[in-house]
Amino acid sequence: MEGVDHLAEERNRAEFDVEEMKIVWAGSRQEFEVSDRMARLVASDAVFRKDNRGILGRKELFKNTLRKAAYQEASKLRFFVDEPAFTDLHWGMFVPAIKGQGTDEQQQKWLPLAYKMQIIGCYAQTELGHGSNVQGLETTATFDHETDEFVIHSPTLTSSKWWPGGLGKISTHAVVYARLVINGKEHGVHGFIVQLRSLDDHLPLPGITVGDIGMKFGNGAYNTMDNGVLRFDHVRIPREQMLQRVLQVTREGKCVESNVPRQLIYGTMVYVRQSIVADASRALSRAVCIATRYSAVQDNLVPRMVIDYKTQQSRLFPLLASAYAFRFVGEWLKWLYTDVTERLQANDFSTLPEAHACTAGLKSLTTSVTADAIEECRKLCGGHGYLFASGLPELFAVYVPACTYEGDNIVLLLQVARFLMKTVSQLPSGKKPVGTTAYMGRAEHLLQCRCNVQKAEDWLNPSVVLEVFEARAARMSVARAQNLGKFANPEEGFAELSPVLVEAAVAHCQLIVVSKFFEKLQQNIPGKGVKEQLQVLCCIYALNILHKHLGDFIATGCISAKQASLANDLLRSLYSKLRPNAIALVDAFNYTDHFLGSILGRYDGNVYPKLYEEAWKDPLNDSVVPDGYQEYIRPLLKQQLRNARL
Amino acid sequence: MEGVDHLAEERNRAEFDVEEMKIVWAGSRQEFEVSDRMARLVASDAVFRKDNRGILGRKELFKNTLRKAAYQEASKLRFFVDEPAFTDLHWGMFVPAIKGQGTDEQQQKWLPLAYKMQIIGCYAQTELGHGSNVQGLETTATFDHETDEFVIHSPTLTSSKWWPGGLGKISTHAVVYARLVINGKEHGVHGFIVQLRSLDDHLPLPGITVGDIGMKFGNGAYNTMDNGVLRFDHVRIPREQMLQRVLQVTREGKCVESNVPRQLIYGTMVYVRQSIVADASRALSRAVCIATRYSAVQDNLVPRMVIDYKTQQSRLFPLLASAYAFRFVGEWLKWLYTDVTERLQANDFSTLPEAHACTAGLKSLTTSVTADAIEECRKLCGGHGYLFASGLPELFAVYVPACTYEGDNIVLLLQVARFLMKTVSQLPSGKKPVGTTAYMGRAEHLLQCRCNVQKAEDWLNPSVVLEVFEARAARMSVARAQNLGKFANPEEGFAELSPVLVEAAVAHCQLIVVSKFFEKLQQNIPGKGVKEQLQVLCCIYALNILHKHLGDFIATGCISAKQASLANDLLRSLYSKLRPNAIALVDAFNYTDHFLGSILGRYDGNVYPKLYEEAWKDPLNDSVVPDGYQEYIRPLLKQQLRNARL
Repeated sequence: MEGVDHLAEERNRAEFDVEEMKIVWAGSRQEFEVSDRMARLVASDAVFRKDNRGILGRKELFKNTLRKAAYQEASKLRFFVDEPAFTDLHWGMFVPAIKGQGTDEQQQKWLPLAYKMQIIGCYAQTELGHGSNVQGLETTATFDHETDEFVIHSPTLTSSKWWPGGLGKISTHAVVYARLVINGKEHGVHGFIVQLRSLDDHLPLPGITVGDIGMKFGNGAYNTMDNGVLRFDHVRIPREQMLQRVLQVTREGKCVESNVPRQLIYGTMVYVRQSIVADASRALSRAVCIATRYSAVQDNLVPRMVIDYKTQQSRLFPLLASAYAFRFVGEWLKWLYTDVTERLQANDFSTLPEAHACTAGLKSLTTSVTADAIEECRKLCGGHGYLFASGLPELFAVYVPACTYEGDNIVLLLQVARFLMKTVSQLPSGKKPVGTTAYMGRAEHLLQCRCNVQKAEDWLNPSVVLEVFEARAARMSVARAQNLGKFANPEEGFAELSPVLVEAAVAHCQLIVVSKFFEKLQQNIPGKGVKEQLQVLCCIYALNILHKHLGDFIATGCISAKQASLANDLLRSLYSKLRPNAIALVDAFNYTDHFLGSILGRYDGNVYPKLYEEAWKDPLNDSVVPDGYQEYIRPLLKQQLRNARL
Repeated sequence: MEGVDHLAEERNRAEFDVEEMKIVWAGSRQEFEVSDRMARLVASDAVFRKDNRGILGRKELFKNTLRKAAYQEASKLRFFVDEPAFTDLHWGMFVPAIKGQGTDEQQQKWLPLAYKMQIIGCYAQTELGHGSNVQGLETTATFDHETDEFVIHSPTLTSSKWWPGGLGKISTHAVVYARLVINGKEHGVHGFIVQLRSLDDHLPLPGITVGDIGMKFGNGAYNTMDNGVLRFDHVRIPREQMLQRVLQVTREGKCVESNVPRQLIYGTMVYVRQSIVADASRALSRAVCIATRYSAVQDNLVPRMVIDYKTQQSRLFPLLASAYAFRFVGEWLKWLYTDVTERLQANDFSTLPEAHACTAGLKSLTTSVTADAIEECRKLCGGHGYLFASGLPELFAVYVPACTYEGDNIVLLLQVARFLMKTVSQLPSGKKPVGTTAYMGRAEHLLQCRCNVQKAEDWLNPSVVLEVFEARAARMSVARAQNLGKFANPEEGFAELSPVLVEAAVAHCQLIVVSKFFEKLQQNIPGKGVKEQLQVLCCIYALNILHKHLGDFIATGCISAKQASLANDLLRSLYSKLRPNAIALVDAFNYTDHFLGSILGRYDGNVYPKLYEEAWKDPLNDSVVPDGYQEYIRPLLKQQLRNARL
């Protein structure tokens, strides 16, 4: 059976050019070719093996990661190596923090060391008792006039730095966030470069207590990372090691603000969050690829494949559509980031609040959906989805932190809601909403418009769908704003109504994803049948949301129950239309079996022999009679234990 | 800080008698006392330690489980030991299979051996290529006339038995399900008692290949269980080892059906599923207890506790309400099982289909909600919920299989839907629906009735809420039945409409839970404020469903958008009402810290010092400089690696 493609028949059924779709998914032909080459390279190198992650103890697992990181030469490689490591924080947080918050001199001193990895750094912000709330941090950096130093100190147990990746065992340096104290007066939270370990023997420097915070969710997952704990006992650093692009402390202990606009920090947030959205589409597409292929593995004893069941389709295909939807909105966010950067350089901050709200909302929406979707894909694989070898438990465990880091998803939605409420409140003054909130400028129309759908096919019309989504989002925002107006204290009102405000924010974010998908479809997309497939996916994405959030759409009067039922009829027929293309649509992600890391998702569909093979690799199978038999099982069977069970 | 109760203030705020609520939760004073004593016993015995599960390798983990099982004397103990083990299958599946499917003689021979654990058994049904579809099994049991034996054989790779717990390393015997073949003719799937391992040295008998199937989701979780793979190469067993309560094979190879009613099998299913519902309320209450307590851990630097935020309340409190709701519906199911058993003994099969549909639906509903809720509780704990020490990843990983085993949740809902469609179709003939479908008898009224809610408080009226839930369920079922009628081929129609049929089934099951909660409230419930708290919880449970499934309620015309909005207003005020009682309501579960297995959920709320302590126990912290430093980190820092990154 080796070398046989069990899914060949499925692949032959595709009605579109899958090679062209691969280009669309990758973003460009060049992107595709680079990725394709890299992925194969990593997959073929034994150094990057990852199928044994489930059976390695923590120490072996970690050492293994260090080995991979040592062989990881290009940032692109990291993606295909597919294993969280200290290098992620070094390149993704430590270096950018110095770049963004360091002065030119600081950058000249530290960046070359970091680039050559002569020092390895991490980002020490969160504390044991304080999560992402920067203003709640307790660690202090007290200026010592006499020695011209800062004294970094952890005054309480809850002030222990906690979570930073790469901190526990590897980082030699950290950017540490602490409350700046001068002459007993506080001056806010700032970043400080602190050396943690000796560059000679890697031992922690005096006054530093550092270690790993222990196991996390899953087998491999983030256990390949040394998320760490760190305490300071009056550790001294030169004054020059405060990152002082925005605020400088002089030799005399005076604070001098620079003229660098503080909005710059939003630019960084837009960058980080757009990359999280890109990650979401990748994680989601991986899970969907596994579930789709396994659903099409034929069981010769039953007449139908699992993928032919409408219940399976109605759960799986909307997730497949979401993977594409998130891919395109991610692509657009990448553009948004360049746009924001250019404007920042030209001192134009006008679009920043909207861009910030939009990326916050999309980070929240896409990561929440993806986390749930991975678990749904696992369930769609039946019992075998529960095996480590299915790859899905691991994918779930490694993915879910995305819902919490870089802004808890609910907190982010509240930020979006706040921006929406502000936008609504400014409408009467004639202020034109920009970017993704531009539709609010047509609120008057959207509050009254009526959906004209009379037969199922009417729902194929993009402008119909778009207007319904706009009307729903606008009506929800306006209604919330009116309810807020009933509270004497607006902040109290906001707190009280926060659960429904979150729902308005979700409606707005879903509208963005739908509209960016439609925009993508307006582009020139070559390849036989490629655009047609994307149109089907886009429609499935939108109508599935309409079905799941039916209450919103009907309660706001955007559509009638009859129209909702017609949308459902269309959805069903779209599932049938998508069905023969399902395998090819996940093939278009161009994931190697190594990257997928799933026996159920194997390209060739040769699932069962490989599952069987894999089972015997478990250490429990090293011996036929298990360790513990002599002590606990034999005495039981031979009645030598005091087993009194009736 | 040892010995200080950090949540004491919260506990003082409770407006009800928590000791009385503990009795309500436990079911009776006697149940409470037994549980309480057992839980403390297990918690205080070092043998049952479980906090190290995350750092043990598979072999140690498994050996550890064998040790615990050896010390586990009473079935009640198993619950508090809280670790899946081979004994679960021995007592929960092997013994009941012999009891249910064995003749009196077979029971007399095998049960004493099993009771004394002179043999250890498992339940070998599922196969590598075939999940819960019993009719798809490939393993054969061929009758050999000459020797008066059955030959058990695995004809293909996909026929390998796969998943049975306790099979991999421990069981000496199994009840094996195989296709009965006599003279080349098949006679359906039956159970056979097969010895797998020698009782002398535990080695597999000739013709038997047996092993563990490898790692599953999570660290500990089900990895303490030896789920196994098993292949037969023409293994011979005496004819007497076919379980033949229902069908006997004579010496001549003739099949003789007994007069034992086949419906008996449904009785067993009702039993198994009611116990799964009971497990759901326990798993859910555990997760909710952890998240609620941790939400009330005070951070002195911020003005509000997390639990005071309405967004937190609107996610957490409905789950707390669901825990109680599932507890009471589980209690009722226990009654239903006795009722069904009594009727079966009196040859009354009239309520069986309804009872079967009802337990299938409730198994599906409660396990799906619980699985999602555990993960939601993890997210509600913020970043720290991701730590193994929070207990939530482990709880999730060990719980999720409940959505798949004993009937995939979607398949079960389709069974419910089928029963509902049948019920609707029989209405015109005047056949009275029984039990949980009795409301369908009032379909005519329910299709027209109007909800009279005019102000928020009207939603406090149980009969109003109940009628709205009944109307929604009835209208959804009737509408689906009408749509089915449009298909020429009813089976095709059922397949095509299955996604929306599932939704009608969910509506029906939610109605059952709501109505059983209301029934509970009609009982005499002593204790200051106890019933009042339960009323609040019941109302939160129902109105939260109304909010989440708003589309159903409005699209079917059961309520108006305005009434939905009033329900939401009431919900918000109920959250405020519940707030001061939240900690006491989870205290009422009476879980020991050992059972909870969560630092975040500690009774005393002393979270941070204990998290800090726990971190240092990770093997990675055995040495300050990690294994791998010399090979992979030092050369990197000293530029001896070919790291060419710019």
